[in-house]
Formats: sequence, structure tokens, C-alpha cells
Amino acid sequence: MSLTVVGSIAFDSVRTPFGERERMLGGSAVHFALAATMFSEVHVVGPVGDDFGEEHLDLLRERGVDVADVERVPGGETFFWAGHYEHDLNVAHTDDTQLNVFGEFEPKLSDASRSADTLFLGNIQPELQRRVRAACDRTSLAALDSMNLWIATARESLVAAIGEVDCVMLNDAEIRELTGEANLARGARAVMGLGPRIVVAKRGEYGAALFTEHGFFALPGLLIEDVRDPTGAGDSFAGGFLGYLDREGAGADAGLPSLRRAMAYGTVLASFNVEDFGTERILRLSPDEVEARLAELEALTRISAS
Amino acid sequence: MSLTVVGSIAFDSVRTPFGERERMLGGSAVHFALAATMFSEVHVVGPVGDDFGEEHLDLLRERGVDVADVERVPGGETFFWAGHYEHDLNVAHTDDTQLNVFGEFEPKLSDASRSADTLFLGNIQPELQRRVRAACDRTSLAALDSMNLWIATARESLVAAIGEVDCVMLNDAEIRELTGEANLARGARAVMGLGPRIVVAKRGEYGAALFTEHGFFALPGLLIEDVRDPTGAGDSFAGGFLGYLDREGAGADAGLPSLRRAMAYGTVLASFNVEDFGTERILRLSPDEVEARLAELEALTRISAS
Repeated sequence: MSLTVVGSIAFDSVRTPFGERERMLGGSAVHFALAATMFSEVHVVGPVGDDFGEEHLDLLRERGVDVADVERVPGGETFFWAGHYEHDLNVAHTDDTQLNVFGEFEPKLSDASRSADTLFLGNIQPELQRRVRAACDRTSLAALDSMNLWIATARESLVAAIGEVDCVMLNDAEIRELTGEANLARGARAVMGLGPRIVVAKRGEYGAALFTEHGFFALPGLLIEDVRDPTGAGDSFAGGFLGYLDREGAGADAGLPSLRRAMAYGTVLASFNVEDFGTERILRLSPDEVEARLAELEALTRISAS
Repeated sequence: MSLTVVGSIAFDSVRTPFGERERMLGGSAVHFALAATMFSEVHVVGPVGDDFGEEHLDLLRERGVDVADVERVPGGETFFWAGHYEHDLNVAHTDDTQLNVFGEFEPKLSDASRSADTLFLGNIQPELQRRVRAACDRTSLAALDSMNLWIATARESLVAAIGEVDCVMLNDAEIRELTGEANLARGARAVMGLGPRIVVAKRGEYGAALFTEHGFFALPGLLIEDVRDPTGAGDSFAGGFLGYLDREGAGADAGLPSLRRAMAYGTVLASFNVEDFGTERILRLSPDEVEARLAELEALTRISAS
């Protein structure tokens, strides 16, 4: 089984009450890929500029990520984001965004990327998401993320894109904004009404909720004492979630038992993501640590001793 | 086993996007008692005015609540709160607060109230909480709630009161405000450092988290589609939580298995509370419904099929 992710590759400068980093490796496709590669073979599709060195690609390669479709744009610069978090780590404050090569991004997929079993359309312009979705004709599970910008400026395209995937992964606030439903369960049902059979509501430190036609599932976040930088946690969640489903070969008809475990792995990967800046924690993460924390999460949430 | 609650008895006028009610029965002690009485014998201690009729007391009596210590203040008026909720039901907007007899409240406990096994000090002035705590010398499990007003204006008294109970139940924002810790797990640990061995963080629609020296536990909220009025949900949570522990005779040394189930019952009672205005849903709640929803919550949160 294999998995393709299309999205941003970035340099992030981040400041939190616990430190700061300049131009570290980031971007939604990167965070997603590094989490998903704990479970399955991952192809990354995204653009970088001349400032993106081999040493950055090596960080991905060393973790087993296929970077053949990382497109280097001659004369271009890599997407750059600068932001900070204050006392409340739930709120990111953007200080600078330079789209650079990402602004003109036109995804080009190799045969290997196009024939992946699982596809994650990171947060890019919805019409690009639709083109990539159409190109990946052997995909058995396609998921997308989006953001408030596209909900506000490209709603029709986004609704069309949502209608063409099996799974939507959004923040709970985005689900509310997209559907106009204040109630999350109703909002998720409205999203399912657009086509997808799986809706995942990401809720930051509060965890995540899953909605399907066959039932609901919800997990609190792990209660991490040492949160240093939440950047990328949502993408790490998505990587753990879809990486696990891809490994299981679950496809769009994944049953609730598989989806429950996928939610748990997503929660675990997100919890590691926030323990250090950018990708630093996930880059040194071992499969044993993932399994140990999954057991911790099961213990954290089990009502009855079994 | 029996349980005493000290707190407000009120008339609430509430407006939400789903309707409104004038001067309905409310107050923290009332919401708590109606939830706790699903599990155990409950004594309510709180003041009312001449405007509080026998028909209101009968609502409590019919559910088995002991109202012998509901103190009627001649010539007084009952505590009155008016508020509304907008699209986002997580935020209450207060339109009017008239403390009335509650402003001069000096708790008077009968022998039956004083000798209860479990004590819940609802959100009242911390020095009053301390006096009640001292009077209840046979209590094996004492818990308290508080609010931002007391954190800001009576911090020393509140810290002393916290040091005299076994369990603290606060909103997560209140734990952050009280301790100055942005991280909830660290904040909860700081509260434990003041004395209590159990800290419950209420998180609104996101559920609740439990912290003890022996471990953590967390539950998401139930994903209720028809939320009509969240007023009293936190007190219903506390009533389910402590009512169950009282029935089990758990005391301050309650182990994690008991505390887990108590958290689940608290979550269940809160979920019913929000389905209708004020006390309306809990007043018609049956034990079978409670057990059915507990099973639903277990299914909602179980990672592995057992």
C-alpha cells in the first residue's frame, strides 16, 4: 500500500513561550509525510525553491519518504511562514507569509504518486485539489483538508472538491464556518451531505471527533505537560490517521474499528508533534514510542477496567 | 451513604437560539442535587425568598431530594440570574444578576446534612465553604467548585478552602487562571500541590479531564445534536460524578477505576442537562436512560473492540 500527499513544503520561523526557531523545515505536506511514514510508504508532492537544500530533502529521505515529486522551481524561493504563540498555545499568530513558489504551484504527479492507494489533499486551492483527485484514479481512499481562506473565497470549488473525496478533515471551527451549523454533530452531518462518508473534526488540545454514517467516535487529546510548539499538529494527526488506514488497506469502506484505531494513531502522532519545535520530535520518533503512547491513550480513555 | 450540597438556589431567565424561559428553577445546588439524586440521598442547603413556592420545593421532593435545609428568608427574594447564549453555546452572556437572599447567605446545616458522607461545596464565597467544610466532620469526600470572581477577589481564602478538600472541580480556564499555568496538566498538578488529591477540569462541550497522583483520565463530551440550553451542565456533571462516588462509598481514597466511572456518569448527566432548558430534562430522566447513555459513551470512546 502507498500514500500520496500534496501540499506545502515550507520554512517556518516560530516563537513560543518555550523558545524559537528560524527557518526550520515545515509545511503541511512535510508534517503529514513524516507522521504517515511511520506506517506506510509516502510520496510527497510539493514545490520548493533554490533555497531548499539537499540536507532538507535528506531529512525526509532518511525517514523513508519518497521525494521524487518534490519539485524544485529554478530561481524560486520556498514558501515561508513566520508566526508566534503566546500563553495560549491554541492560537497561532501569523507574523509573515511569503507564498513564493507555492503561489504558482501546479502539482505534477509521477506514476508512483498517481497510483497510490491513499491520497491526502493538503490545504491548497480547491481547484488544484480537484485536479489531483481526478488524476489519482487508482486511489481507494481520498481525504482533504482546507482552511477558512478557501471557505470564504472559493466556497463553490471547495464544496465540489469535498464532493469528490471520501474523507474530510477540518478543525471544528472550520466545520462550523463551512456549514453554518453551530452544533458540531449537525455540522459534520451537513458535510457528509456533500458526499464524504467520513468526517474528522480536529479540536486542538481537546482531541478529535469522527463522524460516519455508521456511528461517532471521539477522543480527548493526550494531556501533555511539555507542549513546546503546536505547529503542524493537525497535519501530524492526519498523517497518523491516514497512514494507519493505508497500512491496513482499509480504503473508503473502512469500518468503525479501523477508523477508531486510526483516530488513536492520529492523536498519538499529534501528541508527539507538539513536544518539540517543528518536525524535531517526529524526526526522532520510533515505532516503539508510538505503540507505548497508544497504550497510554487507551488507558487514559478507558471507562471500564477490562 | 448520603451527600450534602451547599450552594445557590435560583430563578433563571434564559434565552438561547432554541427558545427561552422566564424564572425557571435553577442554581448550582439545584442542578447538582437533581443529578446526584439519581445515585444517592441528597441534602440541599441554600436560601430562598418568599417568591419560592411549595411547587418548586415539590419538584425537588418528588425526585427524592431532602429540602429540610432549604432556608426560607422572610421578606427576601430568591437569587435571580438572567442570561443568554448566542450561536456559540459555549459562552454565557449575563444580562442580570440579583443576589437577593443569596448575598447574605450563612449556611445552616441540620445534623443530617452535617453528617453526610460526601460534601459538595458549590460556588459560594470561599470563607463560607471553609466554615461548612469544618462543620461536616464525618465527611469522607469533600469537593468544591469556584469561579473567576473568587479567584480574583478572594484568592487567599480560596487557596485555603482548596487545601481543606479532597477534590476540586473547576473549568479548565479557571484552573489556568488560578495557577497561572497555561498548560492544563501542569495547572492541575499545581492545584494538587495545594492539597487535594483529585482535580477535575470541566471543558464544556469538549468533556472533562481528571488528574490524580495515580494517573490521568479524560473523556470527550457526548456529541449531542440537540443542545438547547447549557445552563447548569457543569453542576449536573458534578452531581453525576459525586453522586456515583457517594453511592459506591468510595471516599477520598477512591481508586482510578471508581473515578473513571464517576467521570463517565458526570459526562452522561451533563449531556442530558443540555438537551432542554434548565432542569427540565433531568427532572424527567430515568435510571435506564442514564445506563443506556453510559453504554453509548463507552462505545463512543472505545479505541479497541473488546
